[in-house]
Amino acid sequence: MENELDIYQRQGFAQPMGLGQAPAVLIIDFVVGFTDPTHFGGGNIGAAITGTRQLLTLARVRGWPVAHTRVVYADDGSDVSAFTMKVPALLKLTETSPLSQIVPELTPAPGEAVFRKKHASAFFGTDLVAWLAFRRIDTLLVAGCTTSGCVRASVIDASAHNVRPIVITDCVGDRAVGPHEANLFDMGQKYADLLSMDELRAAVGSNAPAG
Amino acid sequence: MENELDIYQRQGFAQPMGLGQAPAVLIIDFVVGFTDPTHFGGGNIGAAITGTRQLLTLARVRGWPVAHTRVVYADDGSDVSAFTMKVPALLKLTETSPLSQIVPELTPAPGEAVFRKKHASAFFGTDLVAWLAFRRIDTLLVAGCTTSGCVRASVIDASAHNVRPIVITDCVGDRAVGPHEANLFDMGQKYADLLSMDELRAAVGSNAPAG
Amino acid sequence: MENELDIYQRQGFAQPMGLGQAPAVLIIDFVVGFTDPTHFGGGNIGAAITGTRQLLTLARVRGWPVAHTRVVYADDGSDVSAFTMKVPALLKLTETSPLSQIVPELTPAPGEAVFRKKHASAFFGTDLVAWLAFRRIDTLLVAGCTTSGCVRASVIDASAHNVRPIVITDCVGDRAVGPHEANLFDMGQKYADLLSMDELRAAVGSNAPAG
Amino acid sequence: MENELDIYQRQGFAQPMGLGQAPAVLIIDFVVGFTDPTHFGGGNIGAAITGTRQLLTLARVRGWPVAHTRVVYADDGSDVSAFTMKVPALLKLTETSPLSQIVPELTPAPGEAVFRKKHASAFFGTDLVAWLAFRRIDTLLVAGCTTSGCVRASVIDASAHNVRPIVITDCVGDRAVGPHEANLFDMGQKYADLLSMDELRAAVGSNAPAG
Repeated sequence: MENELDIYQRQGFAQPMGLGQAPAVLIIDFVVGFTDPTHFGGGNIGAAITGTRQLLTLARVRGWPVAHTRVVYADDGSDVSAFTMKVPALLKLTETSPLSQIVPELTPAPGEAVFRKKHASAFFGTDLVAWLAFRRIDTLLVAGCTTSGCVRASVIDASAHNVRPIVITDCVGDRAVGPHEANLFDMGQKYADLLSMDELRAAVGSNAPAG
Repeated sequence: MENELDIYQRQGFAQPMGLGQAPAVLIIDFVVGFTDPTHFGGGNIGAAITGTRQLLTLARVRGWPVAHTRVVYADDGSDVSAFTMKVPALLKLTETSPLSQIVPELTPAPGEAVFRKKHASAFFGTDLVAWLAFRRIDTLLVAGCTTSGCVRASVIDASAHNVRPIVITDCVGDRAVGPHEANLFDMGQKYADLLSMDELRAAVGSNAPAG
Repeated sequence: MENELDIYQRQGFAQPMGLGQAPAVLIIDFVVGFTDPTHFGGGNIGAAITGTRQLLTLARVRGWPVAHTRVVYADDGSDVSAFTMKVPALLKLTETSPLSQIVPELTPAPGEAVFRKKHASAFFGTDLVAWLAFRRIDTLLVAGCTTSGCVRASVIDASAHNVRPIVITDCVGDRAVGPHEANLFDMGQKYADLLSMDELRAAVGSNAPAG
Repeated sequence: MENELDIYQRQGFAQPMGLGQAPAVLIIDFVVGFTDPTHFGGGNIGAAITGTRQLLTLARVRGWPVAHTRVVYADDGSDVSAFTMKVPALLKLTETSPLSQIVPELTPAPGEAVFRKKHASAFFGTDLVAWLAFRRIDTLLVAGCTTSGCVRASVIDASAHNVRPIVITDCVGDRAVGPHEANLFDMGQKYADLLSMDELRAAVGSNAPAG
């Protein structure tokens, strides 16, 4: 596959955007139901939560705005959609279901936003775009799961809205490694910079803008 | 990878939606610049154009609404965005550039819509959603390129907007086969039904609704 | 003002759209805080609730889908926005505040949708557009308050999304009659048909489509 | 009407937002067809164009980003929509129609954006929101016509997107004065600050941020 993918390089994809002046952190769908392989979990999602714990600490020290998302459907099962036709078990993620609660390691702090969503992208059916604009955010540090699902969808929308997405590779995970890797590739070619936590720390330095 | 991906099946992904009552065809970015490997082309994009020629003929016979998209940036290079920071060569696709003209095999007929776009999804920065609603479309037969780029982004948005995306596998292509296959997998699991042209013909039958 | 407004007629505004094939009812922000003049109420809002009770009964008999909206801000006051900068008292409308509960006369029935929103339009930051598309709705019968605020904003968005808005004049109200009348005029000229409950009943007849 | 409108004051509407740090100018639909009363013009639209000439000069001196909009429908009349059902004459505004050209006094300079739109709001079906985000704009100085139509619709959307709208009262106009005044009232109460050109000049001062 190496050789095949050279075509992306020859065509000029994957140029780095770099960090902007005002970052925020978006933590996508790290809820209980995505930690358990009998529901939507598995793969490297647990490791990504551990990584995100570090990102969240960094964000709070720096004062970067933080937004979390949860998938929440109506209690009465009435939220049928194209998405739930493909993945019916999503409808179990209701407001009070244990499966839809943010994992304890990443409990939102006061003042951090929590967006409820019913579709893959954190932008669709939420006012995340307005939350970002109010804070003049130009860079979105992205964590969450799954890489091939809600992370990918949110990254495409962040790019479209011109809030540069930076995927923190230690902080995103998927139930299977193949799609995780394939989607990191696609995002890095077209929409996002990919940085590890170490690379992020180096990039923001000790006197980086505090967001 | 087979075994690893079994987890999707165990978790209940990839349920078929089936066709709805009112289909339309969306043909994404089959422009000259995506047929030439020295620009954005390569891989199986040529074959996908051939397949799409058949889909377009079927749509016209059936009277299904057809929408085409083109990528079009400002003539003066001023349309800089997060997307063009990752892929600067996109800015060459201007209104009158030969690279941004729809390929002759798929020239839009009178009454077919042509949406100009600057981002990956055919929904972003266009009024495609309103065009679909005016026609009460509930099913979007998707062709175009690239599978891992604008097709994937548009399919996610079609799903979010509850217009069921059906990816016609003979009619989508990419500059490299690895991302093509990986994205067909993701879309089939989460957002879209995948049908070949033969399967589509069988599904719509000889007295299918005319759209 | 009569003569002055003749210009709209001469320029061809205010053509009737008529009802489409598949109506739904949208009931905007009839919550306790908008019934009380010491909060956001006053004017003819009470009468509009009475009118809407009749519209809701008709919708349930006919089986038309019904969506309600509530304004709901974060409990901790963190939902500051351009809108709440203009109208700070909005922030009192939190999930559990009595002010933000739908009035008892219009309590949603099981299966009716309730959209929480933070901005004027019922479309912004919600997935109302997807809810409408899933049901192939082409006509939105609009009730709610205030005529000059959230009703007007939602009607503009319904028009843009090509779901024809029909404002039911007995079912919309405002805290002051001047803006109520001025906004009915604007909506009737540009975006919506205006029908009274009697005119709606006549238009849907006894064997109208059941939605 | 004075007394009746006191209720807005008692309920806490119309708080000033003030200017933010990074303004841009949005000039809505000042095209030839809106200057001629036999098409869509009349009233105080001519005066508003004169006012906007001053705003545009100020913006260029200051280096504020400038976006213009035009209404442009398909040449073949196929762009039927809910909006054009209410106002069929809109369909005459095609790409090359003299009616749809920006008036000579306000000809866009190189680097200024021109958004084509088919609906009332400058945000709908365009990527204006992404253009604003890329420039980190937090304040939108609004000019254009008509006050009761595309200006009002765009101002609601700017508010929802948390880009504070400031309506420059010398720079907006309508074909009839009644709706012009009524919509200035509504916007000033709920969504926008209203400033005259003189007030804007005073507010930005001689060493204001250059955008």
